[in-house]
Amino acid sequence: MQDNLIAPTPSAYTYPLLVKQLLLNALSIHGDQEITYRGEQRYSFRQFRVRVGQLASMLRGLDVQNGSTVAVMDWDSHRYLESYFAIPMMGATLFTVNVRLSAQQILYTLNDSRAEVVLVHAEFVPMLEEIEADLKFVRQVVVLADGELMRPTTLPLAGEYEELMACASADFEFPDFDERTRAATFYTTGTTGDPKGVAYSHRDIVMHAMGTAMSLCVPREGQRLHREDVYMPITPMFHVLAWGMPYIAVMLGLKTVLPGRYVPERLVALRQSEKVTFSHCVPTILKMVLQAADAHGQDLTGWKLMIGGSALPPALCEAALERGMDVFTAYGMSETGPIVSLAQLPPGYAPKDRQDEVRMRCATGRPVPFVDFRVVDENMEDVARDGKQQGEIVLRSPFLTKTYVGKPDASEELWAGGYLHTQDIAIVTSDGYIRIVDRIKDVIKTGGEWVSSIEVESLITGVAGVQECAVIGVRDEKWGERPMAFVVREAEMGVCVEAIRERLMQHVDAKRISKYAVPDADHIAFVGEIPKTSVGKINKKLLREQSRA
Amino acid sequence: MQDNLIAPTPSAYTYPLLVKQLLLNALSIHGDQEITYRGEQRYSFRQFRVRVGQLASMLRGLDVQNGSTVAVMDWDSHRYLESYFAIPMMGATLFTVNVRLSAQQILYTLNDSRAEVVLVHAEFVPMLEEIEADLKFVRQVVVLADGELMRPTTLPLAGEYEELMACASADFEFPDFDERTRAATFYTTGTTGDPKGVAYSHRDIVMHAMGTAMSLCVPREGQRLHREDVYMPITPMFHVLAWGMPYIAVMLGLKTVLPGRYVPERLVALRQSEKVTFSHCVPTILKMVLQAADAHGQDLTGWKLMIGGSALPPALCEAALERGMDVFTAYGMSETGPIVSLAQLPPGYAPKDRQDEVRMRCATGRPVPFVDFRVVDENMEDVARDGKQQGEIVLRSPFLTKTYVGKPDASEELWAGGYLHTQDIAIVTSDGYIRIVDRIKDVIKTGGEWVSSIEVESLITGVAGVQECAVIGVRDEKWGERPMAFVVREAEMGVCVEAIRERLMQHVDAKRISKYAVPDADHIAFVGEIPKTSVGKINKKLLREQSRA
Repeated sequence: MQDNLIAPTPSAYTYPLLVKQLLLNALSIHGDQEITYRGEQRYSFRQFRVRVGQLASMLRGLDVQNGSTVAVMDWDSHRYLESYFAIPMMGATLFTVNVRLSAQQILYTLNDSRAEVVLVHAEFVPMLEEIEADLKFVRQVVVLADGELMRPTTLPLAGEYEELMACASADFEFPDFDERTRAATFYTTGTTGDPKGVAYSHRDIVMHAMGTAMSLCVPREGQRLHREDVYMPITPMFHVLAWGMPYIAVMLGLKTVLPGRYVPERLVALRQSEKVTFSHCVPTILKMVLQAADAHGQDLTGWKLMIGGSALPPALCEAALERGMDVFTAYGMSETGPIVSLAQLPPGYAPKDRQDEVRMRCATGRPVPFVDFRVVDENMEDVARDGKQQGEIVLRSPFLTKTYVGKPDASEELWAGGYLHTQDIAIVTSDGYIRIVDRIKDVIKTGGEWVSSIEVESLITGVAGVQECAVIGVRDEKWGERPMAFVVREAEMGVCVEAIRERLMQHVDAKRISKYAVPDADHIAFVGEIPKTSVGKINKKLLREQSRA
Repeated sequence: MQDNLIAPTPSAYTYPLLVKQLLLNALSIHGDQEITYRGEQRYSFRQFRVRVGQLASMLRGLDVQNGSTVAVMDWDSHRYLESYFAIPMMGATLFTVNVRLSAQQILYTLNDSRAEVVLVHAEFVPMLEEIEADLKFVRQVVVLADGELMRPTTLPLAGEYEELMACASADFEFPDFDERTRAATFYTTGTTGDPKGVAYSHRDIVMHAMGTAMSLCVPREGQRLHREDVYMPITPMFHVLAWGMPYIAVMLGLKTVLPGRYVPERLVALRQSEKVTFSHCVPTILKMVLQAADAHGQDLTGWKLMIGGSALPPALCEAALERGMDVFTAYGMSETGPIVSLAQLPPGYAPKDRQDEVRMRCATGRPVPFVDFRVVDENMEDVARDGKQQGEIVLRSPFLTKTYVGKPDASEELWAGGYLHTQDIAIVTSDGYIRIVDRIKDVIKTGGEWVSSIEVESLITGVAGVQECAVIGVRDEKWGERPMAFVVREAEMGVCVEAIRERLMQHVDAKRISKYAVPDADHIAFVGEIPKTSVGKINKKLLREQSRA
């Protein structure tokens, strides 16, 4: 094959795919477009580019070199967006610290990532001081005072962000380099062991932005992104690069609203004042947003909202649709870019009824371009597209995590058979729609039958008076496992065990679930709240532990 | 930097960008979508994929291997679309023969490309027989009988396309390989010397498809492509991969109409019967389409038409707009993918008047994503964005031609200073719109002033009674050069030299052109027709030669 390669002689002609290229159109076409921080500060893309240059100069002044790791601990801000570009563009690695982790977990990730410099919001300085003695590589800290007065600190302080920026030159020449260079890293908290580092190369970020953007831009109408949308993330920028969406917003030249720390009332107010039309969040946040909007009588009509992180419960989807929101599912994980499929309604789709539409929007959806998305049995054969046969979702695409940093065994397991294994169990219908049934480890095996914990959860959540629900498998001598439901009731309404069981039995009669799937009366427990992980997902691991104890 | 690269250990985890991935979504989502040849034959994307496998098996049976070149001589057909995928996907090179060249030029390109196998439409068999004795590498010929009876031939016949397809297995495993592998090649006819071979790698094709698709999909409305569009090329598939658009149509899952040989009446009829909404062509074809539609009273409303190849004359643009067409310019060349900019109207654009709108749609436009598009002076410094300062368009992007095959000097010249030199002279306005003023070699230097031949042409074409016009510089003792206009009059209307000069002087008064730019009375010649190149552009080289003779 070698003689068939197009390899230009002078290396100047190669064009690696780099994060800096996401800025090309933003500047040549959309230079006047606006970025605002909480509606309080605002500047143009042109000024953004100036500050990206300044940030790089500032970090170079702190001896950040190619291959250095710079950690950021901040809420969603223009500063965060600056770091999304400046740090990778200078050849360094952006480490987005999950500020919701415990101090000890943050310590672990800062050491494991070899972060040399930390950009830290004043709010997190006390936490950093707490672990300061055990930090192995951090040599400089830049405090993001966010307009407040700075308190004295024991940390190795380089200075305050805005003060350092003011002294830094905007002229920084961002070089070309290999597109496989690490651009960003993030730690995913699995159910066992230490957080695992996931790394994104420049090529990963660019290809993910292009694939996802194309999928979002191509529909004629509905669940789409266009040039006149106003974008506001509600998935934190410290979490999986906010699903890569800030990169897409800049690439397409969209007005971008950065809301700071997520306060539901403020999100709804910003949506109104800044005319936000496109956002993305986890179901829990959607619920809070709906409540905040109801409390203040605010209109949500036309707000396009991509939901991910965990399955969108049908009842919540319906509540959002009733307020005129255009909600739909995005599927992916930290290891997958993250977005690999979207539940956009198909061309010309006319819903049979509201229930059918909800089902479509809550599905895992259909693959975005360039994702080789398969649902396979244990022999890596594709399952039938019959809406019945279950298999694991396995993936190939140009932007998947190649390896967990420093974890060869976990990496081999992730990539068994040359495909990335998601551990999600799904079915495929004849029109190519994928629907996740459960996580491999959450599937409940009862009396030789497989029961989807997610399915039972969504049916219980649909019972009047139920606010939230989690279902796990608990050991049972006779059946191996039995489903156990933890239910949070709505404050003002009473719902009893029998009402729930009665409704579920109706679903059995309607052939929606099997009889085995209905929790026994002593396996439905009312609780005050359901434990969540640091990223807001139901903590089934903890529930299982508690139920065993 | 080496330690900063994300390089997975087992090579199975890499994911090169390959033409075959353009089919992933087409099959997973749009398997039932339709491809039709002239409205007479039609099949689904799923069946298309089967035939792509068959074509690869057939060619492997003819000993086509990695690195082999397969030439195609056909009009736009489903067969051509099959070859767009099967040939590159098996690791061979697709050579799209420009059937409009002379037999001797075709001979040169077939030998220069080392084509081993030729797929040839029955119509071109006599031409191939004519040059058969001098073909150096062709060892097998497959005739595309296109439903007609085959005549005997002296060519080394492997068989008829459909007959060979019927015997070929659909099971062909398309392997992964290096994304820099040559996928396709095409010959561009410059003004001097032999045609030059331009090669496109798999990565070039994929990145061009993604960048152009994103630019076409992102507008809210107007000059856009969406999932429900119906696509029909009217730029031949043998010319610069039909601007890469068939790849985009398949990638996005659009219904695709392949019109065979271009007959204006048939194009307009197909547009109506197949409900075509998106096409692309050169200005000459647009003119023929308008005439055919007028002759048959056919409606063209809503037809989105991308115009490239040469500048869209304002008068023609206006004629198309009056029929409700959504025409706009695409700019590029064989060496650039080809599309690098599009004259899509900006978000929220409200035209001041029809003239302003025509001006916007006829502009060179704004860059598509990932194109580093600059207009520079002779020191490679960007010109001011003032709509006045002129400079050459130079480019970098992930999908430009790296090198002319076997022409190192021309390649070095093309890439002087690390940017691809287009030889197009342009201005940039403050909103980032680029407008080409002329080709470097067509600019007329008169009395120390630079006059744009294109500008004078477009003003003369706007004079009532003028059908077409070409302007070149001719030698002049006093001024160095003077503009010379060749004018074709509309049959039914008379127009005289003085009427033309009078109108031009009005433009001088309105400061649209300088007085130097107006051709002298003895430099306006009425001609029966204007010579064109094989791709339908005005042949200025020939005009210059004739005017010197």
